[in-house]
Amino acid sequence: MSTPQGSGHCDVAPIRPEVVVVVGVGLIGASIGCALSAAGVAVHLRDTQPGHATVAAGLGAGTLESPDPAQVDLVVVAVPPRALAAVIGDALQTYPSAAVTDVGSVKAGVLTELWSTGVPLERYVGSHPMAGSHRSGPMTARGDLFVDRTWVITPHPRSASAALRRVAGMVASCRARSVTMDVEDHDAAVASVSHLPHLMSALVAGHLTEVPNDHLLLAGQGLRDVTRVAGSDPGLWEQILQANSTAVLAELYDLHKQLEGVIGALEAGTAPGATSTELRGQLERAVRGTRKIPGKHGAAPVDYTQVVVEIPDTPGALARLFADVGAAGVNVEDIAIEHDADRPLGYLALAVAPEQGPALASAMVGAGWSVDS
Amino acid sequence: MSTPQGSGHCDVAPIRPEVVVVVGVGLIGASIGCALSAAGVAVHLRDTQPGHATVAAGLGAGTLESPDPAQVDLVVVAVPPRALAAVIGDALQTYPSAAVTDVGSVKAGVLTELWSTGVPLERYVGSHPMAGSHRSGPMTARGDLFVDRTWVITPHPRSASAALRRVAGMVASCRARSVTMDVEDHDAAVASVSHLPHLMSALVAGHLTEVPNDHLLLAGQGLRDVTRVAGSDPGLWEQILQANSTAVLAELYDLHKQLEGVIGALEAGTAPGATSTELRGQLERAVRGTRKIPGKHGAAPVDYTQVVVEIPDTPGALARLFADVGAAGVNVEDIAIEHDADRPLGYLALAVAPEQGPALASAMVGAGWSVDS
Repeated sequence: MSTPQGSGHCDVAPIRPEVVVVVGVGLIGASIGCALSAAGVAVHLRDTQPGHATVAAGLGAGTLESPDPAQVDLVVVAVPPRALAAVIGDALQTYPSAAVTDVGSVKAGVLTELWSTGVPLERYVGSHPMAGSHRSGPMTARGDLFVDRTWVITPHPRSASAALRRVAGMVASCRARSVTMDVEDHDAAVASVSHLPHLMSALVAGHLTEVPNDHLLLAGQGLRDVTRVAGSDPGLWEQILQANSTAVLAELYDLHKQLEGVIGALEAGTAPGATSTELRGQLERAVRGTRKIPGKHGAAPVDYTQVVVEIPDTPGALARLFADVGAAGVNVEDIAIEHDADRPLGYLALAVAPEQGPALASAMVGAGWSVDS
Repeated sequence: MSTPQGSGHCDVAPIRPEVVVVVGVGLIGASIGCALSAAGVAVHLRDTQPGHATVAAGLGAGTLESPDPAQVDLVVVAVPPRALAAVIGDALQTYPSAAVTDVGSVKAGVLTELWSTGVPLERYVGSHPMAGSHRSGPMTARGDLFVDRTWVITPHPRSASAALRRVAGMVASCRARSVTMDVEDHDAAVASVSHLPHLMSALVAGHLTEVPNDHLLLAGQGLRDVTRVAGSDPGLWEQILQANSTAVLAELYDLHKQLEGVIGALEAGTAPGATSTELRGQLERAVRGTRKIPGKHGAAPVDYTQVVVEIPDTPGALARLFADVGAAGVNVEDIAIEHDADRPLGYLALAVAPEQGPALASAMVGAGWSVDS
């Protein structure tokens, strides 16, 4: 028995499942099938739309043949949110020794629903891969969809450790990184990092329906970024948001309060000469928030090192300096001029990954430049 | 005299300026200098930070030498929002025959401030290039920053047509697309497509400061997209939002109302079995909003044509079909399976640009496939 506390990287010893049934072969289910098949696992595909299973099989996600139920050691349920509890309960009864997991975006409600049915849940361990696409359906399945992605495993207090280990084995075979979390922690986390951003994106995008077409000629990349997720399937998102409404509402109440703060600050700021520390504070807090987001594929946020080079006040100095930076073969992430009251040009600050700082500094010194230490 | 009504593509005959002063050589000013210099215009650079002007000159944005004020036919003011009116007023007095424009993000307040000074404004025509970067400063200047971008020109009722034509000439030399708008229209448009999205992005990002670090391991591309613009310079954005507070507040009041609708819908939906037409409606409205955004570089939103191919129920059919689609040499934007109650696979729907539809359809027919018309 495993009774997880809070969250952490999954440290159980994974057991690779040998015979897997994937129920529901949309993008996620079919991609899991492709990843497991590529890893040598026998994958059996099921879908209420036979065409989906056939397409997925054609892409290498598995076979359409039915397995011997007694041989199945893992069932992956990848169906829409509202169908999850029923299909998980059915899988627990159909496959008598299989571990059963699902890939739903919200975990607590499904578990509550399952408890209420009285089905023994030792073999059930929920999970949630943090990967997806704005596309859906098996046609867009990819076996490498989960590589280096976070895949949350959410055991409940009665989950058997054998089941947990098989789910961890599936995650490892999909080359994702497993993290264990309590269901409540998981649901609060996705409310913050996915559901709240989705709703705000949707409100901004929905507001565009009221905006004259010619005003939209002024749209830039910022608007496209902010509203991109709002283009996703409304039916699916209605189910996700309803399923996580308690956690989402907690986030929305806070955002509502902050929005009223911004409105108040702008109203106050319209008085002549007024400035708004409240508005400035919100914008600075936002910058701090963006810096908390881990880098791509779950890497830690990057703090760059600055290599600062003095710029001589001679013609062509900057062009030569750029040429030497280029010749150093280091990936420069950002550049800025830092000023000095006494000199017309000052200093060139080159931001690079911390491990590249010493190499760049010594290359620049070697090329005759004066580098600040 | 030009008295624009509403907005439209700029149809005055552009006059290319010959001698231009750029005041303020951050990213935008230095990029204008580079574009105009490349087009053969004599550009003179000025900045309160001499280092900036030197860097911009080193990048080919223009010269540091002072021009004969009487020879200058256009001044481009590219300074921070709070300094705009003073610098524009100064330019109108320093260069007696020059048209003067600025590149500020908000137009009405500056104009009001200028009127109040009593300086004659016939030679002033505001403008706003819809281009930028999350970087700032002259080091990141690029002569092609404006190519195919929208550049709004905002003449006021007393703008002289000669001044308007020179500003249009500058826009043309920067290879951007000019659109004329009233200042009020412009400010309402940027409130909708830029300032409101920025504030919502900032509120979502700011909320992350309250989220436990391990919850952020679940962050995906959606969160990064929604919060990207919130990483921009808080000092600049405070000035922009304050300068456009009236238009921004109008947007925020609407968004506040919609947010309360969503909160109410989620609260009501937590009753067992309740569904939310309000929530579904908001999510569907959001999808319609995203479809109103023009494509990259101001192109009209693309409606794709579907070419629908029957998929035979034979082994390997799908692989051969993909091979033939590939061989047709047409850029397929999206693919989906459409189902048919009587057939296991159904139809493959290929979305392509309208002008490529006929070519793809005839290629597929030529390869022996059955295409729905």
